[in-house]
Amino acid sequence: MTSAPPPSRVVIPVVHPVVDGGRHPVKRVVGEPIDVEAVVLADGHDELHVVASLRPVSEPGGTDAAPHLLATLGPVNAGLDRWGGRLVPDRPGRFEVVVTGWIDEWASWASLAARKLDAGAPPAEIEVELAAGAELARRLAARSTDRAARDVLRAAADALASGDRTPVRDAGVAGHARTGLGPEGAMSSDPVPVHVERERARFSTWYELFPRSWASEPGRHGTLADVAAQIGYVADLGFDVLYLPPIHPIGEAFRKGPDNSETAAPGDPGSPWAIGNTADPGDGPDGGGHRSIHPALGTHADLERLVVAAADEGIELALDLAFQCSPDHPWVRDHPDWFSHRPDGSIRYAENPPKKYQDVYPLDFGCADWQGLWAAGREVVRHWVDHGISIFRVDNPHTKPFAFWEWLIADVHRTHPDVLFLSEAFTRPEIMHRLTTIGFTLSYSYFPWRRSKEELEEYFTELARAPGADRFRPSAWPNTPDILAEQLWGAPPALFELRYLLAATLSPSVGIYGPAYELCDNADAGNGKEEYARSEKYEIKTWDRTDPGSIAPAIAELNAIRHEHLAFRTLRTLRFHTVGNDRLLAFSKTPDAGPSVDPARPAHASVLVVANLDPHGTQAGTVDLDLAALGVDPARPFQVHDLVADRTFTWSGPSNYVELRPTEQVGHVFRVLQDHP
Amino acid sequence: MTSAPPPSRVVIPVVHPVVDGGRHPVKRVVGEPIDVEAVVLADGHDELHVVASLRPVSEPGGTDAAPHLLATLGPVNAGLDRWGGRLVPDRPGRFEVVVTGWIDEWASWASLAARKLDAGAPPAEIEVELAAGAELARRLAARSTDRAARDVLRAAADALASGDRTPVRDAGVAGHARTGLGPEGAMSSDPVPVHVERERARFSTWYELFPRSWASEPGRHGTLADVAAQIGYVADLGFDVLYLPPIHPIGEAFRKGPDNSETAAPGDPGSPWAIGNTADPGDGPDGGGHRSIHPALGTHADLERLVVAAADEGIELALDLAFQCSPDHPWVRDHPDWFSHRPDGSIRYAENPPKKYQDVYPLDFGCADWQGLWAAGREVVRHWVDHGISIFRVDNPHTKPFAFWEWLIADVHRTHPDVLFLSEAFTRPEIMHRLTTIGFTLSYSYFPWRRSKEELEEYFTELARAPGADRFRPSAWPNTPDILAEQLWGAPPALFELRYLLAATLSPSVGIYGPAYELCDNADAGNGKEEYARSEKYEIKTWDRTDPGSIAPAIAELNAIRHEHLAFRTLRTLRFHTVGNDRLLAFSKTPDAGPSVDPARPAHASVLVVANLDPHGTQAGTVDLDLAALGVDPARPFQVHDLVADRTFTWSGPSNYVELRPTEQVGHVFRVLQDHP
Repeated sequence: MTSAPPPSRVVIPVVHPVVDGGRHPVKRVVGEPIDVEAVVLADGHDELHVVASLRPVSEPGGTDAAPHLLATLGPVNAGLDRWGGRLVPDRPGRFEVVVTGWIDEWASWASLAARKLDAGAPPAEIEVELAAGAELARRLAARSTDRAARDVLRAAADALASGDRTPVRDAGVAGHARTGLGPEGAMSSDPVPVHVERERARFSTWYELFPRSWASEPGRHGTLADVAAQIGYVADLGFDVLYLPPIHPIGEAFRKGPDNSETAAPGDPGSPWAIGNTADPGDGPDGGGHRSIHPALGTHADLERLVVAAADEGIELALDLAFQCSPDHPWVRDHPDWFSHRPDGSIRYAENPPKKYQDVYPLDFGCADWQGLWAAGREVVRHWVDHGISIFRVDNPHTKPFAFWEWLIADVHRTHPDVLFLSEAFTRPEIMHRLTTIGFTLSYSYFPWRRSKEELEEYFTELARAPGADRFRPSAWPNTPDILAEQLWGAPPALFELRYLLAATLSPSVGIYGPAYELCDNADAGNGKEEYARSEKYEIKTWDRTDPGSIAPAIAELNAIRHEHLAFRTLRTLRFHTVGNDRLLAFSKTPDAGPSVDPARPAHASVLVVANLDPHGTQAGTVDLDLAALGVDPARPFQVHDLVADRTFTWSGPSNYVELRPTEQVGHVFRVLQDHP
Repeated sequence: MTSAPPPSRVVIPVVHPVVDGGRHPVKRVVGEPIDVEAVVLADGHDELHVVASLRPVSEPGGTDAAPHLLATLGPVNAGLDRWGGRLVPDRPGRFEVVVTGWIDEWASWASLAARKLDAGAPPAEIEVELAAGAELARRLAARSTDRAARDVLRAAADALASGDRTPVRDAGVAGHARTGLGPEGAMSSDPVPVHVERERARFSTWYELFPRSWASEPGRHGTLADVAAQIGYVADLGFDVLYLPPIHPIGEAFRKGPDNSETAAPGDPGSPWAIGNTADPGDGPDGGGHRSIHPALGTHADLERLVVAAADEGIELALDLAFQCSPDHPWVRDHPDWFSHRPDGSIRYAENPPKKYQDVYPLDFGCADWQGLWAAGREVVRHWVDHGISIFRVDNPHTKPFAFWEWLIADVHRTHPDVLFLSEAFTRPEIMHRLTTIGFTLSYSYFPWRRSKEELEEYFTELARAPGADRFRPSAWPNTPDILAEQLWGAPPALFELRYLLAATLSPSVGIYGPAYELCDNADAGNGKEEYARSEKYEIKTWDRTDPGSIAPAIAELNAIRHEHLAFRTLRTLRFHTVGNDRLLAFSKTPDAGPSVDPARPAHASVLVVANLDPHGTQAGTVDLDLAALGVDPARPFQVHDLVADRTFTWSGPSNYVELRPTEQVGHVFRVLQDHP
């Protein structure tokens, strides 16, 4: 008979959060809490002690020197076996959450002893119990690795042995007995991986533009240098990511003309997503295609200068990764086997019968030379990373294998952990979630098609909770070059303001395609599809950004509010509040660190948004606030400061009247304040 | 560059059902469907083919000769990536469910080709597409392991090559192209373990009695032989499990008297759960205690005769496993180290200050000789298994380590897979579920404290769905020797009938402690606790089972209905129906094999129960039936045959009036019938 210790009495059936059973990491950013909740059980009635730790995962060649975070978990549901606590990661990296539980022998003994004392047990019985406590204290002291704990426990043992009852209820003794030793019989959960990223992975404000339409002088083809020269416009609007459609050469074969017409006239620029070949052999044998820049846009040096100019304004540049080829892309010539072929030898272009997309050849990621193709894709990404790019917006990732993206993103992150990948997969939810699960940092969302109060409440409530909250970071875009939502066809500026207000306050990541958006371009293609008329995808546009009808000032104001108030950086604390009017939407957020209504800390304020979903008429109603969610003491009045109108109102209690006239403002964005009592 | 194939394009993020992430098996019985549902994804727009297989897990030394079950999964949510299908295990054992998906190349090509044909593509384009189809058909034929498939595919290739379009829409070709080959690029999910048990693991009808109160002549101590002689009573009532409280010797030290009084008078029999020592040294050195039979009850031969007598009536015997000891149990003498001690050397009895349970010493399953203790516990179980016992009701398992039960049950099941273990853990839900997850076959439930319509609907709805449905089989007991629910204090026989009707129709497993139950003993202990007055736990009772007030006939009738109608063997198909009266509860069930309203197959009928929760007064109301759940064609009338009152009513449509007078019947139990059109 060996003297192996018995198996632990503790079992941990469930740990949350978790993604894909632990096969993929929980997504967080620095400062974003991990609210750990676990079911922890043992037989009998002993007291448990439960902790959760956050520890870095060793990289090969790296060190574990960084300290663990440790949190004691407390019961969260009145003794029904759920334990919870909060870990707040303070740096980016790959971590594991482990929940560990053990029997707190001292607390179990002390609880029994206290009950005997309270029940007035006879002295002889008490004496025996105290002696048992003394024996336990000595045993725990011997096991403790902590000198202070040993001293306290030995002192407690002596006291109990002499009949002194005070150690029974001494919290200090209890603390040392619980934490100062290597617990015997502890049970640890399987580790839950967590990927902590930099803040921009979650909170980002995107502006998309077509450089070719930003020439300093009208009529010319705009360049990267032109964009750099005008970066102040983007900065003044308050954006922190500048995203460019593909900057590569554009194919000439089957080039599309304005409004996606089948044939291009000479001079028509074509679609940036039909990636062709550079005419410049100076790019070398690996040049052309995805590793080159369209000659009319500029050079690699121009790109690097743009990166610097943007960075000076606090803006990161994002490039578009579109892994497809026009017929004159160098890969068609050099690697024809990377494409699907018909029996007659021709390459299969993309099609959706009867529609043909003859300007685009999809790549065959399962071809015989799949390893060569995958490597080429990775080299494309690394090429741009080496030129200073830290964000990629990926075109239609759902038409390329999951395994390819998982491998590529992991490969890039091994050397460049800060690179972010935005998934542009407007498709079914399971696919969108799988893409972010396997590596995409964030994803476009269904925001363009969520318009009514019910739709917005349902969709954002879903995004704010598990499983999405742990694996899917949304980005809300009121428009893109591909999407002019039906609601915006012929719509007034007030609706453009409203949609931006909603996107920018509901979602930590927001983006617009401009200047079409702020100039309120509401002309649809007239064919029943949610496309722009005279889409900038197929022609150079002349925009007058100084047009007095531009809603740029409103956007700038909202972006400034977004940036100043930390509450807008999260989705977890989103709460919808009841309003007795279907056209009024009311919701609040508080910062990750907890609700604050302290007027001395505006950045930490709870925020409350009341939006009028009717762009045409005044709407009024009574908001029934969940004051606890706001952090407001219901017994005292509080102030709501309208950050848009710069007015303050005093409210008291949950029911408060609001009225919004679209000609004045499309929504209130309140900072919530309450004086100290 | 190797020629390794690329990773699969298919991913399977989710498979249901699953228990504990696959660490513990899904629970089923023979004939109980496994409705597999999986999320299966691939990039792009190709067609998928998804199957689920059930395959036996090899036992060491066993064979895999038994065939797999295989089911093709179909889309379950209108193209939103969920696939479902049904596997019905037809024998007990340990199995694994695996979901496998692959790209259906033929269906993908055929879909594209068909759309081109429908769109009227030019002949040249069609010709190229047909040639591609021919090439594909040849390639699939070469890969096929099925001769018939190869022939069909080659014929299709020839047809397509000659310009024949019919193979494009030929379902036969599609079928061979899909299933007759080893799929390339297939992805299989991690296997999900499934434990398929015999039917009684789920569907059981228990009767508990104290043999010592069943003497053939009043005033004597009843014996196992007396029970065997009166087994007909239990059989006539329609029970299939006869459960006896512990049959072991009862301790004399600190023996409790009637009504749990502190001291026993001479002749007081004590509690069967205070397991002591036999006075008969003939049981040998391992005898006494848990491996002996109370001398007043009989011998091992008597037990075996009782097992046979019960089996002749279709009844299985269940014994009580209570791993605790009275102070005079042989383990106290032979293994004092198996118990917790105080510093003064005395053994710790169970206590809940100020209450002391000095007749019971709990075992210390973590003591230094834990391996000896655990082995002794296993030997106790094997001892009774070797004497023909196939069911154990386990007393308070939640006060012994989970690891002990997991090990013990697995050990017994290795040689005796048919042994069932009922968990008597009236405690917190997570603990109850953990016990069944790690091995207990079924468990007592909260039924005694679910009385109102809302409580019953909520509780049984929860039990019928995941996760409970896959890991927790409930047993509903209106009473036990420990529990006379408050509702039954001073209650009329109608309430006893009602509670049995509810338990027996809502839950596949039901049990009563008799004859207290059928004699409607409603006298509580008068101390505010849900205990019987003059509890049979502490004294021999004289029951008159012929009392005309016995509700035995009603119980027998309900048990006969339960046994005849397969719908009562499941919980999965339970559906509550709306009734416009809070005192009327309406619910239906259909058999696992699917709803049937065919009058020619009464055993397969859908059943509908309408119960009056008010034992004192008539209640009436309109039931609003979900006819689809019943399997009824709403366009035609149908019949409901009241199995209790033996009357048939014709109903049509969902709304139907019911009225129940407790003096006549406490509830309708309808068989639902509909003639063929």
